[in-house]
Amino acid sequence: MPRSLRISGPAPALDRRPRAHGEPVAVTTGRLEAFSDGVIAVAITLLVLNIQVPTPPLPPGKTLAHELGANWPVYAAYVTSFLTIGIIWINHHVMIRRLREPDHMILFLNLLLLMSIAVLPFATDLMAAYLRQSSGQHLAAAIYSGAFLMMALFFATLNRHLLVVKPQRLREEIPVERRRQILYRSIAGVIPYGIATALAVISPYVTLAICGALAIFYAFPISSGGAAAEA
Amino acid sequence: MPRSLRISGPAPALDRRPRAHGEPVAVTTGRLEAFSDGVIAVAITLLVLNIQVPTPPLPPGKTLAHELGANWPVYAAYVTSFLTIGIIWINHHVMIRRLREPDHMILFLNLLLLMSIAVLPFATDLMAAYLRQSSGQHLAAAIYSGAFLMMALFFATLNRHLLVVKPQRLREEIPVERRRQILYRSIAGVIPYGIATALAVISPYVTLAICGALAIFYAFPISSGGAAAEA
Amino acid sequence: MPRSLRISGPAPALDRRPRAHGEPVAVTTGRLEAFSDGVIAVAITLLVLNIQVPTPPLPPGKTLAHELGANWPVYAAYVTSFLTIGIIWINHHVMIRRLREPDHMILFLNLLLLMSIAVLPFATDLMAAYLRQSSGQHLAAAIYSGAFLMMALFFATLNRHLLVVKPQRLREEIPVERRRQILYRSIAGVIPYGIATALAVISPYVTLAICGALAIFYAFPISSGGAAAEA
Amino acid sequence: MPRSLRISGPAPALDRRPRAHGEPVAVTTGRLEAFSDGVIAVAITLLVLNIQVPTPPLPPGKTLAHELGANWPVYAAYVTSFLTIGIIWINHHVMIRRLREPDHMILFLNLLLLMSIAVLPFATDLMAAYLRQSSGQHLAAAIYSGAFLMMALFFATLNRHLLVVKPQRLREEIPVERRRQILYRSIAGVIPYGIATALAVISPYVTLAICGALAIFYAFPISSGGAAAEA
Repeated sequence: MPRSLRISGPAPALDRRPRAHGEPVAVTTGRLEAFSDGVIAVAITLLVLNIQVPTPPLPPGKTLAHELGANWPVYAAYVTSFLTIGIIWINHHVMIRRLREPDHMILFLNLLLLMSIAVLPFATDLMAAYLRQSSGQHLAAAIYSGAFLMMALFFATLNRHLLVVKPQRLREEIPVERRRQILYRSIAGVIPYGIATALAVISPYVTLAICGALAIFYAFPISSGGAAAEA
Repeated sequence: MPRSLRISGPAPALDRRPRAHGEPVAVTTGRLEAFSDGVIAVAITLLVLNIQVPTPPLPPGKTLAHELGANWPVYAAYVTSFLTIGIIWINHHVMIRRLREPDHMILFLNLLLLMSIAVLPFATDLMAAYLRQSSGQHLAAAIYSGAFLMMALFFATLNRHLLVVKPQRLREEIPVERRRQILYRSIAGVIPYGIATALAVISPYVTLAICGALAIFYAFPISSGGAAAEA
Repeated sequence: MPRSLRISGPAPALDRRPRAHGEPVAVTTGRLEAFSDGVIAVAITLLVLNIQVPTPPLPPGKTLAHELGANWPVYAAYVTSFLTIGIIWINHHVMIRRLREPDHMILFLNLLLLMSIAVLPFATDLMAAYLRQSSGQHLAAAIYSGAFLMMALFFATLNRHLLVVKPQRLREEIPVERRRQILYRSIAGVIPYGIATALAVISPYVTLAICGALAIFYAFPISSGGAAAEA
Repeated sequence: MPRSLRISGPAPALDRRPRAHGEPVAVTTGRLEAFSDGVIAVAITLLVLNIQVPTPPLPPGKTLAHELGANWPVYAAYVTSFLTIGIIWINHHVMIRRLREPDHMILFLNLLLLMSIAVLPFATDLMAAYLRQSSGQHLAAAIYSGAFLMMALFFATLNRHLLVVKPQRLREEIPVERRRQILYRSIAGVIPYGIATALAVISPYVTLAICGALAIFYAFPISSGGAAAEA
């Protein structure tokens, strides 16, 4: 086990020092959530701008059904990204709820996580545009899946900071066993995106299929709420 | 009456178990609302991007009034979608306010409901672009109305989950009679969109007219607040 | 004085009936504000999409300074619309804070007010695109100013509903004199936009100048907070 | 020391007068934050619309990697703007948290600050589009850095208003020494953007490099939270 993941001994006592007079020194957890919610809500809704209406009038011999059907990579990438952002929103909420008060490193890591979410409309558009091209399709798929990989990595890093580095900032003490379990789960969430990214070399369809399957797997409540809520 | 809609006997006792130590296991209703509000507010405002300014300078012999007037399907679809999203926002709020704490299935169904709302800027653009075309107009209208149909279906499904499957998650116990009434009303809301979608085969104008009439009917407070608030 | 504006006698007693068992029947003022804030924040920020970057490389003999300078109507319309939406946001907040709980008519009128705000990115774009054209400039200016006029009208209508029709829904009783004063002020806010719209027949520059002057006048805190806060 | 920055003597007693009967006269700090959060969250997320997908199919002999690589100014400007907006959001929150209740001048200055943030998607697009052009590159860089300069200026002006002009509106009394320190820090934050803007005359690369370095310096929590939180 690498040292950076070692969680041992009891959590330090919670830091409940009173603030210096007249000095709110940090961002509240509430506003951190509100801002993160805002960015995630805008990013998930902007995805729709990638779905273009075929310019009318249609060329002779073409039907709207055919034109829309030819765009299926756009819809597949849309649904995958929408569900994935929806899942990360749930997980983000569960993670931040454990936090009493953010420090500057948490704000910084959260900003990187939000950036990895905010670029998804671009990555989704790239994937959809190149999936069926004979050139560029592998790189486009690697960037798409790689964007999810970054998101999972920043998420795990932020979780590690909360649970291992600064457990005194947790709202309530969490037993070592449980913190280890939560952390391992979010690290495990990185792996399938790593595989999907690597497989882009072979086929962009495989990459999209894995990302789509992960989105459905995590979003659909087959598990009793636990696994998906920490994926 | 199909089994899935049967509500019988008293609601189970409310589940007020204390949470496990240090373990916020679910998303709060408050943040579920905040995120949903964000997505709905962005979707309703993005609709305006579909209204294009005619590129100046105008071709000789054309007036701006003529050019803008020729775009009337854009405005009709805009107003219809804006009011419909506004109504679903009201109904969503009324529905979620009944909830004490979401479970994973509620989060999943809510995410699908949000997706059906988030695609409306695309469906609206499609409808407006093809309404007066001689090809594709029926499909475009069916997709437009079908998007509202999906929204109504996800709404009714979520309502059913709250009122029938997991009544123990309600904030306060609601009598069986009243739960049945609320549920039937939201199922009834599905029907007119089904009719509008079916009629797209005959005429896209009829479909748009029905959707527009429904938007005005539900939005305008002729009824004393009840019907529209649950449509 | 038209009958519809007559405020006489004491306000009816506040309606503080307890809600029916298990029945949250209305949208809370808090969520009404949150949703309105969201729509207004998205609309005000989407305005920037109207400011286009001149496509590089520049044609020979043209400088970027010249190209950007030629776009001055875009900046003038942007600043005017930004400040105007900012002012309406302040006024909206002041208005809604007086409300204890919305009824369905308030939700409906608020939705119309939000629609009039949400179309401003289009109206602003139209104004900027046609201001210096030799055709369409008068209509574009009339639509621009007319959008502000609609906004002011819906605002006054909503205010009248709150203060005259349903004063029992106010958070605290407001003396008749004060209610009359507030209402007259928001009706007075309609007049200058009516004049600006009418003057579009003469010159679109005059219309833009009036709208810009109003935005600066209301936004700039020369008055001690009162006038602008109710304009 | 210019007179306008002089802070002397104890802060005036906090103004805790009860409000006039039935009269909420001002916008609450909470809603000021919520609206500002909304605008900032939309602006930071809209930045992604500047990142264009190369239109497929690619011209013969070009790879997607080459096309994307040629867009590096877009990514550099994106990351710089994203982090800078993220930092200003943190600083805005810290500043507003000190406030008990805004007055009209605070709302006005805050609106100007939000406008300087809302135009950043345009300034970022301009910078990225012209960085490597042989014409317009200096002006584009000056406008980009100048937008950050404006933002820093409005921030410092708002901070000065809070700390010097209206200290009676602070939530808690802050000692003169501490107020002076906070104010000087936010004024100091203006200087590097002034330098970056001036250096646009020499090289747009230098300007972008300085803005990027500032974003990383302020965002990365090397300092123990203080410096960056007030930059």
